[in-house]
Amino acid sequence: MSGILGKQSIQFENPPYILATANIVGKKEGEGPLGALFDVVGDDDLFGEETWEEAESAMQKNAATWAINNAKLTKEQIRYIFAGDLLGQNIATSFGLLDLDIPLFGLFGACSTAGESLSLAAMAVSAGYADYALAVTSSHFASAEKQFRYPLEYGNQRPLSASWTVTGSAAFVVSNQKSQFRITGITTGKIVDFGVKDSMNMGAAMAPAACDTIYQNFMDFNLQPTDYDKIVTGDLGYVGSDILIDLLKKKGFDITNQHMDCGKVIFDQNTQDTHAGGSGCGCSATTLSAYLLKEMEKGNIKKMLFVPTGALLSTVSFNEGQSVPGIAHAVVIESCDK
Amino acid sequence: MSGILGKQSIQFENPPYILATANIVGKKEGEGPLGALFDVVGDDDLFGEETWEEAESAMQKNAATWAINNAKLTKEQIRYIFAGDLLGQNIATSFGLLDLDIPLFGLFGACSTAGESLSLAAMAVSAGYADYALAVTSSHFASAEKQFRYPLEYGNQRPLSASWTVTGSAAFVVSNQKSQFRITGITTGKIVDFGVKDSMNMGAAMAPAACDTIYQNFMDFNLQPTDYDKIVTGDLGYVGSDILIDLLKKKGFDITNQHMDCGKVIFDQNTQDTHAGGSGCGCSATTLSAYLLKEMEKGNIKKMLFVPTGALLSTVSFNEGQSVPGIAHAVVIESCDK
Repeated sequence: MSGILGKQSIQFENPPYILATANIVGKKEGEGPLGALFDVVGDDDLFGEETWEEAESAMQKNAATWAINNAKLTKEQIRYIFAGDLLGQNIATSFGLLDLDIPLFGLFGACSTAGESLSLAAMAVSAGYADYALAVTSSHFASAEKQFRYPLEYGNQRPLSASWTVTGSAAFVVSNQKSQFRITGITTGKIVDFGVKDSMNMGAAMAPAACDTIYQNFMDFNLQPTDYDKIVTGDLGYVGSDILIDLLKKKGFDITNQHMDCGKVIFDQNTQDTHAGGSGCGCSATTLSAYLLKEMEKGNIKKMLFVPTGALLSTVSFNEGQSVPGIAHAVVIESCDK
Repeated sequence: MSGILGKQSIQFENPPYILATANIVGKKEGEGPLGALFDVVGDDDLFGEETWEEAESAMQKNAATWAINNAKLTKEQIRYIFAGDLLGQNIATSFGLLDLDIPLFGLFGACSTAGESLSLAAMAVSAGYADYALAVTSSHFASAEKQFRYPLEYGNQRPLSASWTVTGSAAFVVSNQKSQFRITGITTGKIVDFGVKDSMNMGAAMAPAACDTIYQNFMDFNLQPTDYDKIVTGDLGYVGSDILIDLLKKKGFDITNQHMDCGKVIFDQNTQDTHAGGSGCGCSATTLSAYLLKEMEKGNIKKMLFVPTGALLSTVSFNEGQSVPGIAHAVVIESCDK
C-alpha cells in the first residue's frame, strides 16, 4: 500500500483518478488567453456578493458544487474536503464550504495549496480512507491585495516584478473510480528560504522551492525532464520561471523544453498589464482544471508534473523584517485510457 | 487497510502510536495547575526572540526538535510534518519549522489543529506513507491578541466570556513503532455555524461543533459516553463546556462524568484572571502532551476521546459582519501495553 519512494515521494500502488473538475474565474481571467476554456466567467468580480472575501467564498462554493455535479455524485458521497486559500484564517474556504456539510481538512500552503490538496486527497483515496475526496482552492485579486499589499483605492504603482493574483477557484473530485486522469505519484515540498525580502517579487521567492521539489522528483522517481511532456509550475511568472530554469540547469537538468508556468499562460503580458504574470492559489488550480486536463484529453499531454508554488508571505512577518520563504508540492498526473 | 466507519470516522486497521512528545509553555501556564508537568516553562514569553511571532516560532522549533530527540530519531527520519497555528498565513509554523528541512503539509483548523494534525499524521502512518510523521501546533497569547483583538498596549478590558490564549507548543511523533499510546480511530469534523458573532465568546462559537463531532463519534463507533474514561475538549472553557453538555443531553448523551476541557484545567480561574479559561491551538496540544498522556501512563485513563475545538475567527470576516463558525476534530487514543 505504501509506495514510499526516495526522500520525499510516493508512487501510488493504487493510483487514484481525477474523476471530475470545475472552475470559475473573474472578468480579467475571462479576457485572457484561456478565457474560452473556463467553465464560468464572472461579469464582475463580486459574483453577486457584498465583499471581496464573500465573492471568493462564492467562487469556492460554486466550483465545489459543480465538480460534485460533474462527477454525478451527491455531496453526501464526498467523504473529505481538502481545501485552503490565501486569506488569514482561511476565511474564503470556511465560509465558502460551510453549507456543503462535509468533513473538512483545512490547509495552508500559500499558492501551493492546489498541489497540497490534490496530494492529500490522493493519499486518502489511495489508502481507502475515502471513495471520493474533494480538493478545492481559490484566490481573488482584490481580497489578496487587501490582505497582502495595499487597498485597491490607494492606487499604488506595481513594479514589473509584481504578479497579478488570479481571481478564480477550481475543485477536483479524486476517486478510485476510473477516469482519463490518474495521479500516479506525489513529491511533497519542504520550506525553502533564499532570503528574498521583496513582497513585489514573489516569483524569485518561490523559484528555489520549485527547483528543490522538481529536482527531488527527478531523484526519487529516477526520471529526466524528457520523461514528462510538461513540467508545470504554478505562478512563478516571467521573473521566477527564468530563475527556476537557471537553478535547475546548475543541478544538471534542463527543463526549458518541458516547462510551462500557469502564471505566464493565464494572462496576456502585452495587453493585460499583469507585469510578471498571474499568481495565487487559483492560478494553477484553474489552469489545471480548464486547460491542462483538456490538453490531456486531446492527447497533447500524456504525463505531466504539476507543481503549484507558494510564497509564505504575511504582512506581519514581512513588516517585522522576515524573508519570504517558498514551498512547492508536486503531483504526477498521467493520461490513461478510460 | 481502509477502516472507514460510519459517516465521518476511521477505525484504523493498523493503529499507529504516539511514540514521543514534547512541549513548552509560557510563564503564566507554568504558574497554573499543570505547571510542574510541562517539559519547559519560559522565563518570559519571548523565548529569546525579538517579536511575539518569532517567540511562537521558537516554541514550535523547540517542541518539534525535542519530540524527535525523545523518539530517539534524527530529523532525516521524519517523513512528513503536519503543522499549523492561528496566525495569518501560518507564520509561526513556516518560520518555526523552516530549519527542520522536512516535507511539510501546512494546516489551518484554528484551535482544532492539534486534532487535525494528529488525524492526518495517523492516516499517513497507518497507510504506510511514513514510518514517522510529526504533528506540531502552537499558540501565543500576545501574537493572538495582536492578530485577533487589540494590541496589548491598548489595555482593553476583557469580558468574563473571553478566554486567554495559551502560550505553548507541543509536538507528537506518530509511528508504527510501539508505544503505550495508540491512535485507534478518528472522527473528522465539519464546519458548524450557530451564528455566534461575539469574538469575546469563542466557547459558545465552538460548542456546537464539538457536540456535532462527539455525537458523530458515538454514532460511527456505536459507543456510549461511558465507553471513554475521558472525553476531552480543547478550549471551550467554562462557558462553552456548559453549552456542550446541554447540547449533547438534548441529543440523548450525558457526558458530565467523562468530560474534561483543557481550557478549564490549564489555568486556575480563581487566581489567574483568565476568565472563561485557556484557548488556542497550544491549549489542547500542551495539555495532551504534558498531562493527559502522563495520566494514561499512570493507568488513570485507558481510553479517551481527544477533541480539539476551533473557532474560525478572522478579523476581516468578523469586521464584515460574519459569524464565527466552529470545527472540531476527534482522535481516539487508547492505552496499550508496551
